[in-house]
Amino acid sequence: MKKPSNEVTPWNVSGQVDYERLVKEFGLSKIDPALIKRIKKHTKELHPMLERGFFFAHRDLNWILDEYEKGNKFFLYTGRAPSGPVHLGHAMIWDFTKWLQDKFDVELWFQFPDEEKFLFKDIKFEEVEKNLHENMLDVIALGFDPKKTHFLIDTKHADLMYKPACQVSKKITFSMVRAAFGLTERSNIGSIFYTSMQAVPAFLPSILKDKKIPCLIPHAVDQDPHFRLTRDILPKLGYYKPASVQSSFLPPLTGVAGKMSSSSSNSILMTDTPKEVEKKIKKYAFSGGRDTIEEHRKKGGNPDVDISFLYLKLFLEPNDKKLERIYKDYKSGKMLTSELKEITIKKINSYLKSHQARRSKAKSQIKKFIFKH
Amino acid sequence: MKKPSNEVTPWNVSGQVDYERLVKEFGLSKIDPALIKRIKKHTKELHPMLERGFFFAHRDLNWILDEYEKGNKFFLYTGRAPSGPVHLGHAMIWDFTKWLQDKFDVELWFQFPDEEKFLFKDIKFEEVEKNLHENMLDVIALGFDPKKTHFLIDTKHADLMYKPACQVSKKITFSMVRAAFGLTERSNIGSIFYTSMQAVPAFLPSILKDKKIPCLIPHAVDQDPHFRLTRDILPKLGYYKPASVQSSFLPPLTGVAGKMSSSSSNSILMTDTPKEVEKKIKKYAFSGGRDTIEEHRKKGGNPDVDISFLYLKLFLEPNDKKLERIYKDYKSGKMLTSELKEITIKKINSYLKSHQARRSKAKSQIKKFIFKH
Repeated sequence: MKKPSNEVTPWNVSGQVDYERLVKEFGLSKIDPALIKRIKKHTKELHPMLERGFFFAHRDLNWILDEYEKGNKFFLYTGRAPSGPVHLGHAMIWDFTKWLQDKFDVELWFQFPDEEKFLFKDIKFEEVEKNLHENMLDVIALGFDPKKTHFLIDTKHADLMYKPACQVSKKITFSMVRAAFGLTERSNIGSIFYTSMQAVPAFLPSILKDKKIPCLIPHAVDQDPHFRLTRDILPKLGYYKPASVQSSFLPPLTGVAGKMSSSSSNSILMTDTPKEVEKKIKKYAFSGGRDTIEEHRKKGGNPDVDISFLYLKLFLEPNDKKLERIYKDYKSGKMLTSELKEITIKKINSYLKSHQARRSKAKSQIKKFIFKH
Repeated sequence: MKKPSNEVTPWNVSGQVDYERLVKEFGLSKIDPALIKRIKKHTKELHPMLERGFFFAHRDLNWILDEYEKGNKFFLYTGRAPSGPVHLGHAMIWDFTKWLQDKFDVELWFQFPDEEKFLFKDIKFEEVEKNLHENMLDVIALGFDPKKTHFLIDTKHADLMYKPACQVSKKITFSMVRAAFGLTERSNIGSIFYTSMQAVPAFLPSILKDKKIPCLIPHAVDQDPHFRLTRDILPKLGYYKPASVQSSFLPPLTGVAGKMSSSSSNSILMTDTPKEVEKKIKKYAFSGGRDTIEEHRKKGGNPDVDISFLYLKLFLEPNDKKLERIYKDYKSGKMLTSELKEITIKKINSYLKSHQARRSKAKSQIKKFIFKH
């Protein structure tokens, strides 16, 4: 089978991502102004990631709000396969998740599927274990409420998760995972079973509390095939279909195609030093500027493809006058790429400085976050 | 695919079992007099199940003895999918396992794969749970040493077992389980993964003690496809191939085809009352006798196909003079079927009486047997 030049699966995102196409192909609903308004009714303000369309699609978010308005609170479920260090792209999704936790005062179940990359990629369990520890520090540093946040680590919580995973697995055939994920006869049987484990946090709280609780999953859109399957199965087991909200990808430093990957030097890591950030932005960040200063001054740059500008947007309020001015100045040629990059470097480093300060205190909190049963 | 009229798979045993054919097809070694002699050197006496050929084949049992003689003790691994009550056929295998534990002074890891029948048959977890409890009582009543016997319950010990199962699963493709078990594209993904869990007890003690320990698996021959696969995989993970010793099946009451099944009334259960045993033997036990007493007296019966006689053999020493006499008397017509059945009923009831006495005290011991970690 020839790989398409642009592909979005749970294990690979390549090429320029066409989000409009994904909405149609995956059968998602776009987040429209009416829904945004409805969310704002509860949250009073809007998270920048929502306002800016970084989260662009959903399934059943209106139902989640219906239930919420009836007093039937949902819980959040998101996760991280600990395959490498956490980068800005992850942080954006979790920052939004934390915002949802705060605004709706709800529980979050955070899954660390520590077997996933072992089964699907060539990563050893020992390496995953190290990443897991580091990743937990970053998640904690984002400020989740330890009283309402529960970490689930697949291999460590399998005494809770394997049985419900078996219940899911009984409803899924090999043909179905072949169709959903492109698995083949040569795929290993752990990878074939795996989606059952990813389904579990969507109904584990309902099992533990012995009542049906709505679930909302904020996730990057590439994970959608898992949750489509989960949505098909859970009602057959007597649970609600989980609702979900899909984010686009933070583009890698080198340009707008694909997604940021923590395994390449092509991303800003949450643990990067100010010097590393400076070097990465200066050396790698794809620029919308012209080849020469002279030409740039004359014709202006293109902020819409400029990675420094795109990143900068993440850290400024959407209606920030500064952002608008930078956009105009860069487009007109008044602002040079080097000047734009300096602003972005400063903003990212200031963000990372506070993150890293919280991160350095996170170690002692890990125990509080890991779910005890 | 047309089902063969005689089939031996982990989920179905039907028709007259041809053990010679299984030895060839599965690539087993027959237990020969030289091996029996070698075992006896260590055990001083022989277990009736071994002497009588109920255990008829093995893999690498000589290697297990080589290692044992070098001071490198093995551990035993056997198990029970709790799909129904325990019957005489199971007890025979575990009685032999207990004998091995006593004679070689070794640990036993006893697996209760409580997901297996849920995944492969139409049995609910709630039903499995009940059976599990009852089955544990029977296993304990057989007299295993609680200090050296560890129960593993797949869903409850999955926090120990799922990770090693993932390591096994990474080496097994869908094609391989299709070939080994006849699974298809319509098989559920839990059943496809399952063999990985059955492999785990064969090397879990090596993981826990962080050294390679030889493993010997006494099991009914229908489970061999699982352990063939396990033997292929474990060396790739740096562990020993498990050795094994295969038993034939205790035939059901109705005759020598197939194996005793705990889900039918076609078997003697370990919890049967004396009255139930009497009724079952009198009503169902296939008889080698003639149609009329007159004809029986004249032509004699056939003890070789008579189920009462076959069962009786289990409870008498192979060289017991009484057994020989009954055989001759039945064959000559001197002994009637009703008389033979009376003897068998008495023997079974006496055996079950002591079993049930021990069983009634087993409940308080369950906790001691379940592996704690």
